[in-house]
Amino acid sequence: MDLEKARQTAKALVAQMTAEEKMSQLLFEAPAIERLGIREYNWWNEACHGVARAGVATVFPQSIAMAASFDAPLVGEIAAAIAEEGRAKYNKSVAFGDRGIYKGLTYWAPNINIFRDPRWGRGQETCGEDPFLTATVAKAYIQGLQGDGEFFKATACAKHFAGHSGPEGKRHGFNAEISKKDMAETYLPAFKKAVEAGVAGVMGAYNRTNGEPCCASPTLMEILRKQWGFEGYFVSDCGAIADIFHGHHVANSLEEAAAMALKAGCELNCGDAFRALTEAYEEDLVTEEEITAAAERLFTIRAKLGEFEEKRPFADTPLSAVSSKEHKALSLKMAEESVVLLENKNGFLPLDPRKAQTIAVVGPNAMSRTVLEGNYHGHADEYITVADGIRRAFPQSRILVADGCAVFEGPYWDGFNDLQSEGAAAAAEADVTVLCLGLDRNIEGEELGFSNDFTEHGDRKTMRLPACQMKLAEAVCDVCENVIVVVLCGSCADLGEKVRSRAKAVLHGWYPGAMGGLAIANVLSGAVSPSGRLPITFYRDDNTLPPMENYDMQGRTYRYLQEAPLYPFGYGLSYTAFVYGAPTLVAKADDKVTVSVTVKNTGDRAGREVVQCYAQFSDSRTVTPHCQLCAVESVVLQAGEEKDVTLTVAPFWLQTVLSDGTRTRPDSGVTLFVGGGQPAPDAAGISLS
Amino acid sequence: MDLEKARQTAKALVAQMTAEEKMSQLLFEAPAIERLGIREYNWWNEACHGVARAGVATVFPQSIAMAASFDAPLVGEIAAAIAEEGRAKYNKSVAFGDRGIYKGLTYWAPNINIFRDPRWGRGQETCGEDPFLTATVAKAYIQGLQGDGEFFKATACAKHFAGHSGPEGKRHGFNAEISKKDMAETYLPAFKKAVEAGVAGVMGAYNRTNGEPCCASPTLMEILRKQWGFEGYFVSDCGAIADIFHGHHVANSLEEAAAMALKAGCELNCGDAFRALTEAYEEDLVTEEEITAAAERLFTIRAKLGEFEEKRPFADTPLSAVSSKEHKALSLKMAEESVVLLENKNGFLPLDPRKAQTIAVVGPNAMSRTVLEGNYHGHADEYITVADGIRRAFPQSRILVADGCAVFEGPYWDGFNDLQSEGAAAAAEADVTVLCLGLDRNIEGEELGFSNDFTEHGDRKTMRLPACQMKLAEAVCDVCENVIVVVLCGSCADLGEKVRSRAKAVLHGWYPGAMGGLAIANVLSGAVSPSGRLPITFYRDDNTLPPMENYDMQGRTYRYLQEAPLYPFGYGLSYTAFVYGAPTLVAKADDKVTVSVTVKNTGDRAGREVVQCYAQFSDSRTVTPHCQLCAVESVVLQAGEEKDVTLTVAPFWLQTVLSDGTRTRPDSGVTLFVGGGQPAPDAAGISLS
Repeated sequence: MDLEKARQTAKALVAQMTAEEKMSQLLFEAPAIERLGIREYNWWNEACHGVARAGVATVFPQSIAMAASFDAPLVGEIAAAIAEEGRAKYNKSVAFGDRGIYKGLTYWAPNINIFRDPRWGRGQETCGEDPFLTATVAKAYIQGLQGDGEFFKATACAKHFAGHSGPEGKRHGFNAEISKKDMAETYLPAFKKAVEAGVAGVMGAYNRTNGEPCCASPTLMEILRKQWGFEGYFVSDCGAIADIFHGHHVANSLEEAAAMALKAGCELNCGDAFRALTEAYEEDLVTEEEITAAAERLFTIRAKLGEFEEKRPFADTPLSAVSSKEHKALSLKMAEESVVLLENKNGFLPLDPRKAQTIAVVGPNAMSRTVLEGNYHGHADEYITVADGIRRAFPQSRILVADGCAVFEGPYWDGFNDLQSEGAAAAAEADVTVLCLGLDRNIEGEELGFSNDFTEHGDRKTMRLPACQMKLAEAVCDVCENVIVVVLCGSCADLGEKVRSRAKAVLHGWYPGAMGGLAIANVLSGAVSPSGRLPITFYRDDNTLPPMENYDMQGRTYRYLQEAPLYPFGYGLSYTAFVYGAPTLVAKADDKVTVSVTVKNTGDRAGREVVQCYAQFSDSRTVTPHCQLCAVESVVLQAGEEKDVTLTVAPFWLQTVLSDGTRTRPDSGVTLFVGGGQPAPDAAGISLS
Repeated sequence: MDLEKARQTAKALVAQMTAEEKMSQLLFEAPAIERLGIREYNWWNEACHGVARAGVATVFPQSIAMAASFDAPLVGEIAAAIAEEGRAKYNKSVAFGDRGIYKGLTYWAPNINIFRDPRWGRGQETCGEDPFLTATVAKAYIQGLQGDGEFFKATACAKHFAGHSGPEGKRHGFNAEISKKDMAETYLPAFKKAVEAGVAGVMGAYNRTNGEPCCASPTLMEILRKQWGFEGYFVSDCGAIADIFHGHHVANSLEEAAAMALKAGCELNCGDAFRALTEAYEEDLVTEEEITAAAERLFTIRAKLGEFEEKRPFADTPLSAVSSKEHKALSLKMAEESVVLLENKNGFLPLDPRKAQTIAVVGPNAMSRTVLEGNYHGHADEYITVADGIRRAFPQSRILVADGCAVFEGPYWDGFNDLQSEGAAAAAEADVTVLCLGLDRNIEGEELGFSNDFTEHGDRKTMRLPACQMKLAEAVCDVCENVIVVVLCGSCADLGEKVRSRAKAVLHGWYPGAMGGLAIANVLSGAVSPSGRLPITFYRDDNTLPPMENYDMQGRTYRYLQEAPLYPFGYGLSYTAFVYGAPTLVAKADDKVTVSVTVKNTGDRAGREVVQCYAQFSDSRTVTPHCQLCAVESVVLQAGEEKDVTLTVAPFWLQTVLSDGTRTRPDSGVTLFVGGGQPAPDAAGISLS
């Protein structure tokens, strides 16, 4: 079924509907139209990092972790696995007559908003702070999920369009003021690339951007539909159309809000504001043509998913695909690739698993399942916590486990129990302490119902961890010589000078999925050499970030930060060493530039290296980024092995963006740098001018 | 340090205190008195089934599960393990200067209230409905916890004295009206036996009993102190002294409430009402002698725990005792012994683990950790869920896991997602479905903050499971031929006629502790033959139990129930068969009666048999129980093996209780019955008359 055929099917179906019926189909809970043989369909489905909220499914590492692998092909494999689980579950739920919420195939992922502020609670759902990395990971995810067959295997939805990244507490009435330059340079590229990748859906954000509600924005829709030629469906974030009236106060009624959204090009309403379309239609605020066009777009997607086929595609995907051994292995592999080794003093890691030693596993995330899941998660049928993983990976060791504190002293904390002595006692007994700190979705997440010293409705107020954890960390460092800090959270963390200077090693493990504890343990034991890279800048806690409400990119992310970061974007250590030859220009054409570099593993163990290519340019007409990631390849090398790695750069990423949003060739030319991270000041590059 | 020496130490310390200092020591957070070298001490510590609320500790099966083993010696071993973990943790916390809540040695366990009403949310903490079983398990727990050395290893506290078992929503102002007969026959015996076992503490209940607040009851204190000679400490339940004023309105002020409690003989206040003792003392509501006596009793306990020794006893108990492999093995063993096999049609169980088959593990408790824990729990460093256990025990099988529904559609349930099709789909694919139903502490527990269709502040309203689970169970039975229902909850459950008739087997697994999933799986696979017995009557849902507020025993428990129960107290199936010879009277003396019986394992596999001895008596002067458990022994027999089992009955349990509470020899004599459960109508007994 090509798109045109799907469109014809949709047109034919919609043509038989009354106006009222057509309007009913624009709600996420689209009812059945029995006389036309149309079943109910629920558009709201989630799959941020595995099929979510629909019972058991493989819980892959959270998006930010997948981005940290810098391994788009692996993301693509995972997305294909997610779609397979989704199809398996869909086959069964329809067989049991269940077409309810979270049981469909139209997933509202990926979240490709730029993680421009490390405090944002939903940053964990994103692919990090960089437009190129986000676009690259998103493309792999979208194409993996949707497949390349006659029918969509499932559909992706790029969200939240556009200019959306907190604050969570204000989102229903917030106006993001964003310059044309930042929009074109930072906020829009990943969406453009998602459209080019064929994404089936785009979700509008809650907030206004430059005064227009994102779900009813002529400006944004002009870019999406006209400039980029997006032909998929546009859905409002849940409740966002009602917000146009209740939160943004730019409509005088729900009818008006619904009409504004529909007329702008929003076909589908998550929420129920579109129930007011009936009145809006009666009051001539919308035309039947607009309603028809919206319904046709939606039924085109449903047709391309195969819903109206006599023989449903993918009907033979078996239930045993769900949470299969193969998918768990993929999840483990991604978790292993996503762990970023930030510190490793004197090669303290890996620990020798053959040695008889006492390992204390201390901290509120040592035994947590919640931290493995992140937000927008499914239920795993098996969880390997960090403590579980260490027990498996270090069978010769005596393992002492202790809480040491709660993740945070929040609303569900009884206020009574200080467990610091428990943590310190275990650490004091141990040869090595693995200190498991971090956050979880109960304090770092989407629009949480509370605020406290640490969090503002899910957005962090500080790069430090909650006070109880910082106290525990310092106490543990006071009594144990050999402390390895494992931080599990969705953003950066600053452990502070004392802990950072005393810890022998620091690992950042994100929200690593249900197998995550084993991945961490495999890195600790050296079964896996760490290869993850930071997809976000790690700021110091004393960094003076602009207020969260300020969407200007100046002072944000590696591309515009003035201060030295704690750890830069693209950074991550390995247990082995990679030496780069001088990069060479292979080809330079209008549609792509190709460079090549020799990478040699000069260490004594195998490892994966993330080869990064950055463009550096300046332009007399505008401010340009310090540098801009423009190509990535990852390569696995055995000890002593050497490979030529070829990187292809699309010209889009070599453009400078002027203040009016125009993308153009920079007037002072471009230099490309290739290496294992951002270019050093004295690096030799390839000049393209 | 014998008790007299501890008393002298206490007297000498207290003699140096001012009245104000003495009063300060009657609060659970007893402050330091530095000039006397006395450190702060926090009396509030929990260990219902493992050291609780103090971070990591072995999570043993919940009390009701331990009672279901009918294996008091094993309870004693577990209690000794708990005390060892407690000492290990105490050694470390004091080394780190932490003498805060939950870090001490004075545990407020066991809960020996009679589980007279199956709806009570805290019934899970008890030893069931029977006075003898409760007394027997409690004695083992108390003596295991306290040890028999020069110093207490830890101290137990029998709670809640006396006549306390809901309703949870009313406990702060409730008056339990209890006849003298029921008091002497049902509510008090376990407390009397706890005192005889040397229990160090007794906790007064929240409610009033026959008009007197239990923490300030001259009637109850006369029994405890005078009749039974209790020499330990008496502590109020937390906030219960304030309740005397605020909830019961039988005092006109906090001072008066505090004075009432102290004068009655309550030495220690959990809560802070005793801060009002200062004013009460100034107003002459209490005397310094009363304050001194209370302080001396408390310091006697502290001295006997060794707190004031230069060389602290048990100081060499290492931290590695906490959550040790040995303790986990004990926890597993107890969980295995506690599983009660209720139904096993045509010997459907055990399942052959060598067979390649598809096993669906479905239900909200399939993957739950919470259900393993029960309430008043510690954190395990390792949990084996039912799904985990089945994966381990059936390595040749394909395992499909599904939620199927939430435990209940409660306040934290988003109301959106119906997972029934997920559960049914997995079951439809399976050769065998293990349906994991039940409750958890979020709906069955202590004074919960909400009520709904199913629960009233933690007390159940029905013997049925929550509606979503009943629906799931019926749906699963509709699509899978071979359904095994595993119910995990703290009380009885009625699965209803449809599910009960369709299920091939039903297991009741309580809240089985952190290793519980493996225990269940080991029973399913036949690695262990089930041997648990019901410590409570399983009522039918249509049973007309008296209102929960009615403390009269008529119509309650196996001893007084008129209707046929669903499953009787003492009931439980095995995979093997035990044949009993005729019991014989070995000896009959004033202090004990000894009977003997031959038990033969006539089946084809080893198993444990719980040999139960019931007394049946009637008395022309009063109503007597149908029968009364009076002795238990458990015996492990190999296939074909035969053993003589000797049971000793204390005369206390052969007495009838008259309406004035007098215990006496029944005027119509006593007949003893021995078997694997309650005596059948045609059973041959031993007449003692």
